[in-house]
Amino acid sequence: MITSHSIRHVRITPIAFRDPPLLNAAGIHEPWALRSIIEIETASGWIGINESYGDQPMLEALAKAAPALTGLSPWALNEMERRVAALVAPLTQTASGFLGQHISLAPGTHVAKTVAKVISAFEVAMLDLQGQLNGAPIVDLLGGAVRESVPFSAYLFYKYAEHIDKPYPPDPWGETLTPEQLVAQAQRMIGQYGFQSIKLKAGTLPPEEEAAGVRALAQAFPGKPLRIDPNGNWTVETSLKIVQQLRGLLEYYEDPAPGLEGMAAVARECEVPLATNMVVTDFAEFRRNADMGCPVKIVLSDHHYWGGLRATQRLSTLCQTFDLGLSMHSNSHLGISLVAMTHLCASVPQLTYACDTHYPWQDDEVIEGGRLQFDQGSLKVPTAPGLGVTLDYEALARLHDNYQRCGIRFRDDLAQMRKYDPSFTGAQPRF
Amino acid sequence: MITSHSIRHVRITPIAFRDPPLLNAAGIHEPWALRSIIEIETASGWIGINESYGDQPMLEALAKAAPALTGLSPWALNEMERRVAALVAPLTQTASGFLGQHISLAPGTHVAKTVAKVISAFEVAMLDLQGQLNGAPIVDLLGGAVRESVPFSAYLFYKYAEHIDKPYPPDPWGETLTPEQLVAQAQRMIGQYGFQSIKLKAGTLPPEEEAAGVRALAQAFPGKPLRIDPNGNWTVETSLKIVQQLRGLLEYYEDPAPGLEGMAAVARECEVPLATNMVVTDFAEFRRNADMGCPVKIVLSDHHYWGGLRATQRLSTLCQTFDLGLSMHSNSHLGISLVAMTHLCASVPQLTYACDTHYPWQDDEVIEGGRLQFDQGSLKVPTAPGLGVTLDYEALARLHDNYQRCGIRFRDDLAQMRKYDPSFTGAQPRF
Repeated sequence: MITSHSIRHVRITPIAFRDPPLLNAAGIHEPWALRSIIEIETASGWIGINESYGDQPMLEALAKAAPALTGLSPWALNEMERRVAALVAPLTQTASGFLGQHISLAPGTHVAKTVAKVISAFEVAMLDLQGQLNGAPIVDLLGGAVRESVPFSAYLFYKYAEHIDKPYPPDPWGETLTPEQLVAQAQRMIGQYGFQSIKLKAGTLPPEEEAAGVRALAQAFPGKPLRIDPNGNWTVETSLKIVQQLRGLLEYYEDPAPGLEGMAAVARECEVPLATNMVVTDFAEFRRNADMGCPVKIVLSDHHYWGGLRATQRLSTLCQTFDLGLSMHSNSHLGISLVAMTHLCASVPQLTYACDTHYPWQDDEVIEGGRLQFDQGSLKVPTAPGLGVTLDYEALARLHDNYQRCGIRFRDDLAQMRKYDPSFTGAQPRF
Repeated sequence: MITSHSIRHVRITPIAFRDPPLLNAAGIHEPWALRSIIEIETASGWIGINESYGDQPMLEALAKAAPALTGLSPWALNEMERRVAALVAPLTQTASGFLGQHISLAPGTHVAKTVAKVISAFEVAMLDLQGQLNGAPIVDLLGGAVRESVPFSAYLFYKYAEHIDKPYPPDPWGETLTPEQLVAQAQRMIGQYGFQSIKLKAGTLPPEEEAAGVRALAQAFPGKPLRIDPNGNWTVETSLKIVQQLRGLLEYYEDPAPGLEGMAAVARECEVPLATNMVVTDFAEFRRNADMGCPVKIVLSDHHYWGGLRATQRLSTLCQTFDLGLSMHSNSHLGISLVAMTHLCASVPQLTYACDTHYPWQDDEVIEGGRLQFDQGSLKVPTAPGLGVTLDYEALARLHDNYQRCGIRFRDDLAQMRKYDPSFTGAQPRF
């Protein structure tokens, strides 16, 4: 490694893009979703990029950690992790103000995940640099592709037709509150992207109505694997009642009841394997699940908060060791996150489930060439060096301008929901 | 990755080098130790190298798997693993003849490990190619060094002055059968290499004599961490009796009693953490230990049978997740294995124990420049591309000639011991 390739500068640009009024257990999506764009530049002028969370605490953590990268080789991932942990870990021990805020369904907003999140944010950008410097796509740096394309699932949401805040014109998806509207949403999304699996974000309408939605989907899309994710918003009793109504229809049952104990109680009486992105969200929780005899059978990883692409590969070995399945979770994101997931998934043999993605819910992009194209619900694994995508700096400026103007600084689905329904408490489990 | 860098040919050269008459639980080392040298050549003429086991079953497995690499990119480690598993796994299901033979203390001779062993043999050579092609040392491909040098331990053996077979002139180490001789061996080895930790291979003399040996070492080398490894040759009762006699002296207690159940029985009454290279030797056994509440607290990995450098990194994450320590095991080996361990250990933050190495017991080398030099018991992490060492083809030819002439085709410490003592059965636990 020639010294001129050492890291000279890290640039973090917060961005915002339009997000539809999607309903979930915590409330409803706000009109803008936040992300950050990370650029790591070497003294020789190469730039590695990445996309991560864009809430205020994350921006503060990234800003605090960024100077520690100066002078590092793009290969020095382990040393980067050490330095980030040393700088950022203290932040997480004084959770207050912004830092203390999070919504329970999104581990990406948990303070305890800050070290892993910052490491991930830098790791992918450094891998992008490594790949560019030696002409190899990131998937090759991860051991090479075991599949040529990576399948994603149709991620369906109940939603309102438009945001309560004005002025935000209605999105093209319209309202989804009934089984018929849900099938129409799925038809539209599958028609456009070709997805072969379907996931329904639940925990928001009365459970019987959501079960009716799943049954309608099963009828409309026979043979397509189906999943439902109430985000821990159902009691154990409700979880067991609803899964009875969905007999033979579910590929897996994602986070029906809250907490690992709640999931374990469901698992004891439920044949469908339980999946989670809420109770096994880091290695310590992985162990807890193992110590309890693995009530959770499928871990929905997310490299953004598990500590990066390499950490998720390591998680895959843990899953294999304990006979657990592995799939991937998603938050609102753009193409850099999507392509990083694609490199990762292509390198993990046992990652055979179609992954979650919010991508169809966004219509903007920050990379050159615009929106990534799916073929039959899958993305081709890039073969160009590094991530295989580059920043569109005009789009970046525009999205950063959105951020400046939108006024949102951390995600708050609960407060947003209270604008619609002042009596909404967000207390879980709700049903 | 330019196509011309695809793999054109794999060459496996069995070698043999002199090995002293070292005593262990299974018997005694034969006059020759076997290894294999792996060369993986690209169409563009680059050659990646590695060192692995050299017994007949391993050579057969390597030969069977080698053609599967043709046409692969050196980056295609995951695909290599898939192909090797498909070709070699069937071999392990028909264990008979050569394939069925192994000695219990050396997982490297277990048929069940064949897939992982072949994968490891090829992985390191492919990493060597990757490193050469992009000018980075292997440690950088593993995330970069977290330490500049890697500590090893003085690996002491009881031994006879010379082999029973003639003509093999006595080695320079002389006889070691008493505490005084043991201290002299340690003084000589530490004087020459500077090791800061001491490990005693035990399970061969009466346990009380070996305990006396440890006490003599503790007195002669105050402050140096001490370990003893009876290789499962003691009963639980003996294990507990001896550890009482060594109170306050041991850093860890390696494989005193046989089997995970035996280790668990020792762990229940023993304050010293138990280490193993016998009962946690793959991921399935890792899980078994975890399911039993982790009676074993320190895993002695060995990339040669754990599936490679990346697999051992993943093992390190499993260890961290379950609060286990990690160190490294060794068999008789030359410099390529030693330098591969060094790259690996430098990349694993939690690998803080000094690793085992048999290196001082060999006096030959197969790499250019001859024997690797220790400084205070540590090896500097190479900064040259790839492994950072290259083959000395004259030495390779000479060592291969040894192999041709020595007549040994698989390791058999038991049969060798019966030449000295026809009544020796090898039945364990012996004491």
